[in-house]
Amino acid sequence: MTESLAHANIGVVGLAVMGSNLARNLASREGNTVAVFNRSYEKTADLIAEHPEAGFVPAQTYEEFAASLQKPRTAIIMVKAGAATDAVINALVEVFEPGDIIVDGGNAYFPDTIRREKAVRETGINFVGAGISGGEEGALHGPSIMPGGSDESWITLGPILRSIAAIAPEDGEPCVTHVGHDGAGHFVKMVHNGIEYADMQLIAEAYDLIRRGTGKSPAEIADIFAEWNTGELESYLIEITAEVLRQIDASTGKPLVDVILDQAGAKGTGAWTVQTALSLGVPVSGIAEATFARSLSSHPEQRDVAQTLPGPDEEFTVTDGDGFIEDVRRALYASKIVAYSQGFDEIRAGAAEYNWNIDLAAIAKIWRAGCIIRAQFLNRIADAYVENAELPVLMTAPYFVDALTRGQSAWRRVVATAAAAGIPAPAFSSSLAYYDGIRADRLPASLIQGQRDFFGAHTYKRIDRPGTFHTLWSGDRTEVEAEDTH
Amino acid sequence: MTESLAHANIGVVGLAVMGSNLARNLASREGNTVAVFNRSYEKTADLIAEHPEAGFVPAQTYEEFAASLQKPRTAIIMVKAGAATDAVINALVEVFEPGDIIVDGGNAYFPDTIRREKAVRETGINFVGAGISGGEEGALHGPSIMPGGSDESWITLGPILRSIAAIAPEDGEPCVTHVGHDGAGHFVKMVHNGIEYADMQLIAEAYDLIRRGTGKSPAEIADIFAEWNTGELESYLIEITAEVLRQIDASTGKPLVDVILDQAGAKGTGAWTVQTALSLGVPVSGIAEATFARSLSSHPEQRDVAQTLPGPDEEFTVTDGDGFIEDVRRALYASKIVAYSQGFDEIRAGAAEYNWNIDLAAIAKIWRAGCIIRAQFLNRIADAYVENAELPVLMTAPYFVDALTRGQSAWRRVVATAAAAGIPAPAFSSSLAYYDGIRADRLPASLIQGQRDFFGAHTYKRIDRPGTFHTLWSGDRTEVEAEDTH
Repeated sequence: MTESLAHANIGVVGLAVMGSNLARNLASREGNTVAVFNRSYEKTADLIAEHPEAGFVPAQTYEEFAASLQKPRTAIIMVKAGAATDAVINALVEVFEPGDIIVDGGNAYFPDTIRREKAVRETGINFVGAGISGGEEGALHGPSIMPGGSDESWITLGPILRSIAAIAPEDGEPCVTHVGHDGAGHFVKMVHNGIEYADMQLIAEAYDLIRRGTGKSPAEIADIFAEWNTGELESYLIEITAEVLRQIDASTGKPLVDVILDQAGAKGTGAWTVQTALSLGVPVSGIAEATFARSLSSHPEQRDVAQTLPGPDEEFTVTDGDGFIEDVRRALYASKIVAYSQGFDEIRAGAAEYNWNIDLAAIAKIWRAGCIIRAQFLNRIADAYVENAELPVLMTAPYFVDALTRGQSAWRRVVATAAAAGIPAPAFSSSLAYYDGIRADRLPASLIQGQRDFFGAHTYKRIDRPGTFHTLWSGDRTEVEAEDTH
Repeated sequence: MTESLAHANIGVVGLAVMGSNLARNLASREGNTVAVFNRSYEKTADLIAEHPEAGFVPAQTYEEFAASLQKPRTAIIMVKAGAATDAVINALVEVFEPGDIIVDGGNAYFPDTIRREKAVRETGINFVGAGISGGEEGALHGPSIMPGGSDESWITLGPILRSIAAIAPEDGEPCVTHVGHDGAGHFVKMVHNGIEYADMQLIAEAYDLIRRGTGKSPAEIADIFAEWNTGELESYLIEITAEVLRQIDASTGKPLVDVILDQAGAKGTGAWTVQTALSLGVPVSGIAEATFARSLSSHPEQRDVAQTLPGPDEEFTVTDGDGFIEDVRRALYASKIVAYSQGFDEIRAGAAEYNWNIDLAAIAKIWRAGCIIRAQFLNRIADAYVENAELPVLMTAPYFVDALTRGQSAWRRVVATAAAAGIPAPAFSSSLAYYDGIRADRLPASLIQGQRDFFGAHTYKRIDRPGTFHTLWSGDRTEVEAEDTH
């Protein structure tokens, strides 16, 4: 191992599909020479044999891997979140030097990233948690990348990540930005996934309503989604929904969607998003309903017995099919605005809690391409936060007010129809309830405060003067001023 | 300190309102002699002076406190959850002996209780986390008590706790049971509080709908709640709602509920319940919506700007006031069934996860008196689980099927009306969506599985044969059998 070996500017550790695709993406960009390492060398050898054009620099040991990298050494870890990630970090810390950069490109839970960054920083090495979205295809052709970590690391890492990120079609900007320090990148990636849950659930509800309301076939509904994809709903998820609905199962000749078991899986990022939001006091009800809808679907032992529960007395029929479909489209768009508004609220609250300086407009911009929730719509969100970085409620940006004004009647009809027809629309109805809650002049939360004061002396505040008060409910029911200790 | 001092059979540490009330309750029961200790002796002295009838045995130090207790020494800690609790536990462990019993009667988060029980058990001392519900009045006159901990501790503790617990009016049984080992008691108390959040939010929505729909005054609505309290909705929360709504603010002459600031506070147990449910994969959407409704209300910086968002074009008017009120009552009852069904699901899932042997019927029984959610209705829940301890969905017990069959049309009308009228009813609508989801023959979760397979190769299962499958979406779109690794 001599210094002359050190000619790679970036390394990748972990050569499963995501890692090898990311390595190939890196190697394909002008100026990058990519060192690769995998725990078992076989995978490394296979990758090199299959992709001689990439000019990979292979290593059999961590020492060789480190020696093959220019300083500051920069390596992206692409292994399973959890213990495997910790093991690789520990190995790299042994062979790297102060100023070098370790990037975790996996789906780590952001508190783990905060912990790891703190521990690695003490060695003088930079640690960057980077959310990478876009799946296997994205890794190969251009993902959306959400790196956290130090400003120092960004100097070296920025140009490398910009070289491989997806390109936003609107302005040619690469979909990567320095999100903020330590865990900020993985936090934002987590919320991205939470929004993805909501978006997918809303699409699923739209499909279900149209199917049960109009009797159209999956292939016919695929056409509807394909058409929606030419308008304000244009997005990757709408596009692939059309593809999935159009697919015919070869073995039965039926629509594939009718053959797939209706129990949705989850890998935990939706739950993390909601759990974190609960700690931050941010209502992300759309994401919560989407997460719960998946877990509800995955309890067959409950669903089997619950099928005996009564539904509406009358059959559900829609008389004006086209009108109903257009209502559903508007309801979907309005609900989607709510879901994104809630998600961006969570990012702002997380930034405040963890002292991250997060540019919400920049986040919207890097989600415009490469990631699963990529959508034309994100340009509107970016515009709103460019216009006012401190915008307290995304929905109140003029563009969204217009959309909601146009869409709200349809949205209300769809939620009412679902309730009457017995079709579950948890995300549609929750989003509307949130919308009507946040715009309410007065909420019955005052009654809740009264109840809490009654049974727990939790005190309340008044609308007409400052202070904290308690009514002597079990005494003479006069009001006393109280210390705000509850 | 001689053995002759040891004549108290139970001690209380921490003499703030809850602790001193619990100590007085203990002292008032035949057979109990109560040792008391507080960090500052002043409070101890005050309590003794104010309540000579109690015959308290005061202590100035932990050593004196321990010496005043018969073996096995048994002490209930009533201090703030968190560091204060740990400090008292550590102090008691110093002066107690193997076989003694330390009870944490505070509102600990159950993972902390599991941790503490494990640590204390190593000393040979028993540690019991006991949820105590009922507020200050309950502590004094009879709370509902949910103790965890070892079987050994229950031998000594059982009779003492039975002596002070609330008495269920139906059968005279004290509202306490040995819930399960280590953190089981605090887990069940947490879910109790989560259900309480849902119950309160549902009541608040019912009040809001009636008020905005019929224009009735809070006092008139108080009469409605008082009447509801004579029927199937009979419960403490309905009862106190009538009291709160009837209350007139002395300084303005207005209904108090109109003077209280409409921003609901929370102490975290609702959030814990939902966070835990997310980890357990149990959809508790009603509790989640209730928790989020409180946090939504407490963001005035958002609500102020969101008031410009458009509502329905037409004013909301109800033509048949009495019919609407009866609809709301039925919707409230149906939604409440869902909230409790979800809460009991979480307890069952928690028991499975943490190896607790929890008797769900016994839990329903000890909630019949003393606690905030006490209700006639809990007899029906107890009946259901007595009938079938393994009942997979509480709602499918015959009594609840009847109630839902009678109530569902009204429930659907109320949710549809709220959506059309622009009145936020997140818990009503979420409960209905859950109901329609769990009873659905087929859910659009199959589409979600198709999307997940498309963008992330997450695979899916089929309805017609075992195995795990993947469609080659970016290839020739044939289906391949896959290993279930995603």
